[in-house]
Amino acid sequence: MTLPLKPNTLSLSQMCRSIEKGEHTAEAIINACFDQIEAREPDVRAWQYQLDREAYLKQYRDNQSFYESSLLKGLPVGIKDIIDTKNMPTEMGSSIHKGRQPIDDATCVALIRQAGGIILGKTVTTEFAYFKPGKTCNPKDLARTPGGSSSGSAAAVADTMVPVALGSQTAASVIRPAAYCGSIGYVGSRGEYSLRGAQPLAQSLDSLGLFSRHVEDIQLLRSILMRQNLSDAPNESVKPLRVLVCQGALIGDTSVEMAQALSALSDRLLNQGVDVVDLEAGGELLEMVDHHGHIMAWEVCRNLALESNSPEMLSDPLSDLMEQGKSMKRARYLGSLKAAEETDKWLWSLCDDVDVVLAPAAADIAPLGHDKTGSPHMSRPWQAMGLPVITLPGMQNSAGLPLGVQLIARHRDDDRLLQIAKWFETVLA
Amino acid sequence: MTLPLKPNTLSLSQMCRSIEKGEHTAEAIINACFDQIEAREPDVRAWQYQLDREAYLKQYRDNQSFYESSLLKGLPVGIKDIIDTKNMPTEMGSSIHKGRQPIDDATCVALIRQAGGIILGKTVTTEFAYFKPGKTCNPKDLARTPGGSSSGSAAAVADTMVPVALGSQTAASVIRPAAYCGSIGYVGSRGEYSLRGAQPLAQSLDSLGLFSRHVEDIQLLRSILMRQNLSDAPNESVKPLRVLVCQGALIGDTSVEMAQALSALSDRLLNQGVDVVDLEAGGELLEMVDHHGHIMAWEVCRNLALESNSPEMLSDPLSDLMEQGKSMKRARYLGSLKAAEETDKWLWSLCDDVDVVLAPAAADIAPLGHDKTGSPHMSRPWQAMGLPVITLPGMQNSAGLPLGVQLIARHRDDDRLLQIAKWFETVLA
Repeated sequence: MTLPLKPNTLSLSQMCRSIEKGEHTAEAIINACFDQIEAREPDVRAWQYQLDREAYLKQYRDNQSFYESSLLKGLPVGIKDIIDTKNMPTEMGSSIHKGRQPIDDATCVALIRQAGGIILGKTVTTEFAYFKPGKTCNPKDLARTPGGSSSGSAAAVADTMVPVALGSQTAASVIRPAAYCGSIGYVGSRGEYSLRGAQPLAQSLDSLGLFSRHVEDIQLLRSILMRQNLSDAPNESVKPLRVLVCQGALIGDTSVEMAQALSALSDRLLNQGVDVVDLEAGGELLEMVDHHGHIMAWEVCRNLALESNSPEMLSDPLSDLMEQGKSMKRARYLGSLKAAEETDKWLWSLCDDVDVVLAPAAADIAPLGHDKTGSPHMSRPWQAMGLPVITLPGMQNSAGLPLGVQLIARHRDDDRLLQIAKWFETVLA
Repeated sequence: MTLPLKPNTLSLSQMCRSIEKGEHTAEAIINACFDQIEAREPDVRAWQYQLDREAYLKQYRDNQSFYESSLLKGLPVGIKDIIDTKNMPTEMGSSIHKGRQPIDDATCVALIRQAGGIILGKTVTTEFAYFKPGKTCNPKDLARTPGGSSSGSAAAVADTMVPVALGSQTAASVIRPAAYCGSIGYVGSRGEYSLRGAQPLAQSLDSLGLFSRHVEDIQLLRSILMRQNLSDAPNESVKPLRVLVCQGALIGDTSVEMAQALSALSDRLLNQGVDVVDLEAGGELLEMVDHHGHIMAWEVCRNLALESNSPEMLSDPLSDLMEQGKSMKRARYLGSLKAAEETDKWLWSLCDDVDVVLAPAAADIAPLGHDKTGSPHMSRPWQAMGLPVITLPGMQNSAGLPLGVQLIARHRDDDRLLQIAKWFETVLA
């Protein structure tokens, strides 16, 4: 006899369907999420701020008929603490903004509320979504970093505290923590979603990110954020014809186990009749790691002008980044923007009919310790090019810890990326 | 004997120099600005919110040694009421946000304060920087619209209430009001400035804008917003080698007087030895007017999700735009983004060695009446392409009302655009 699945472990879409069918009540699912938080939050520390069970249920019951008829049924969503919420502080992981209470919801928060989602709380972010870690531990191994900057969102979703959460990525802030914690992380194409109310770090790089445990939930959230009906975009799983495989070594150091995992996945693709092509010349991608860094330094230095009034309250890595951006020649910044455009063209002209690029989502499993969030290199090239990316769990090292792979698509090809990810999800299951 | 120039009529840079030389005190200049506001504001109505003279002088005197040693000497700056200020409400021209008090300064505001500028007040904007006018009248003829959406910034600067002001442009919101009121208006390249704290309308179109009466002030503000020393960018006047002239008729209806003014300016350029080339094939630009409208409708619909909770408080034109964006097919939106990219390539490949495009900044002088802000068509193509643009006063119709021309440069060629504008300023003087 198997124990019944705890309802907090379902996908958001499954939760909604089970409520529609009368298998679970919304309150039963909400309570299961809170049970999980009560059991695990003392160790995982995913939340910067959260509603308690009573406050959440009051919010639900006060508008129960709205939630019952809504798309998201009053189910819980986590929001990275870099994204403004009108009923909760938004502190951006910095003591400069301790207790900062926004007056408006960010657009993405407003849209989720309109769809009947309830914001359970704010998830831990690194300082201004850069490198200085928050308090979160990796739910798969508490001795390890969850990755950053969307640390709390990745951990809360991976640990089944909430089915979905929002984050943001400027370097590797969605893909890396999702890979380390074993959740799905999706980064939208540059310009794809409204970032109103999501605090900017670098305007040429910032993208909204979504976390879930099933690809169908990413499609559901995407339709809400795009103000489209789910049926308006193609959502069925699509098997790719041709996948371009990028070895991590083309971008930076990767572990032997990660290389083996990628190789094993390539073999599985071949067995499924997918044409697998190895990306060979890769100097461009390695250079793109540096170009990404230049763009980020230049723009962060300008975007955080307000905080440069309080230099003593900024971490050393962030101060260093801003100093680098301040002393940089504008020509270097423009050169890096130009290189990103050209590398994007180069990448997609390498080989005809490529649906997606497959690459390691991180160099390895999550590193031990909590003083750093791991290397962002595996994400920098795609982020500099503004491409949509998704990381999928399913691969593991010999100790059973997650090794994430990522799929990268052409700019604005987000719908098709998610369709292909849905197919990969079955291969990785 | 000529009367001495009132110090509020100087450029910001002249004001700073005159303080350095001991010709004027900062307080004398500040008082002259307030004298002008007291005399004219009852008619012009440029301000949504403003410090009174005593509060301003208290702010100045409380930190006098900082201001005396600062770049901007405690001189006044106006801020469009779509840009967040921590000590003044930011209402975005909408009753939805009546009394809305931001908790943080926008980046651009923080940078101006760091440079020793004092925010005198918030200037009138149309509703969410779209079409519904605010209360401002055109200072050159009160019976006419000042244009929009940065109506108050353009009027306050043209009327010598403040030397400079900030605005923003998504369609024609800087160029048109500057042209109608007779001030200089500059729109930065897409992505050039931090827009943190400037409320977004359409992320693929929004640009920061600056208003002044002299090009050197635009260069000064630009250096502050870029966190660079003024001497780090080339600032001297540059005579263009070749100018591509775009007749307004290629984009939409223009008046006979505007066509004549453009023609007269072309003749002056020829007399100065500038190579003037007429842009002939122009169907692409006309199509770009529609493409701009599609991008705007799609993105505004998403960015104003929060306000769609209060549909009864939105104007009809804005509701219509959002409805259009909601029912639009995504393919149409993506097609318009693509067309903008391609038209940008087309434009700059038409003719070698073109420094700037010269075009009418608006269809004509400011229209009579206050129920509309005039046609945005002359700006839509360049804004869809994300190009830097500056409009310069100096041309007039037979009644002496301003006819603005605009100069358009390649993406990110902002420094050179301003150098060439400095040369045009002398031609137009």
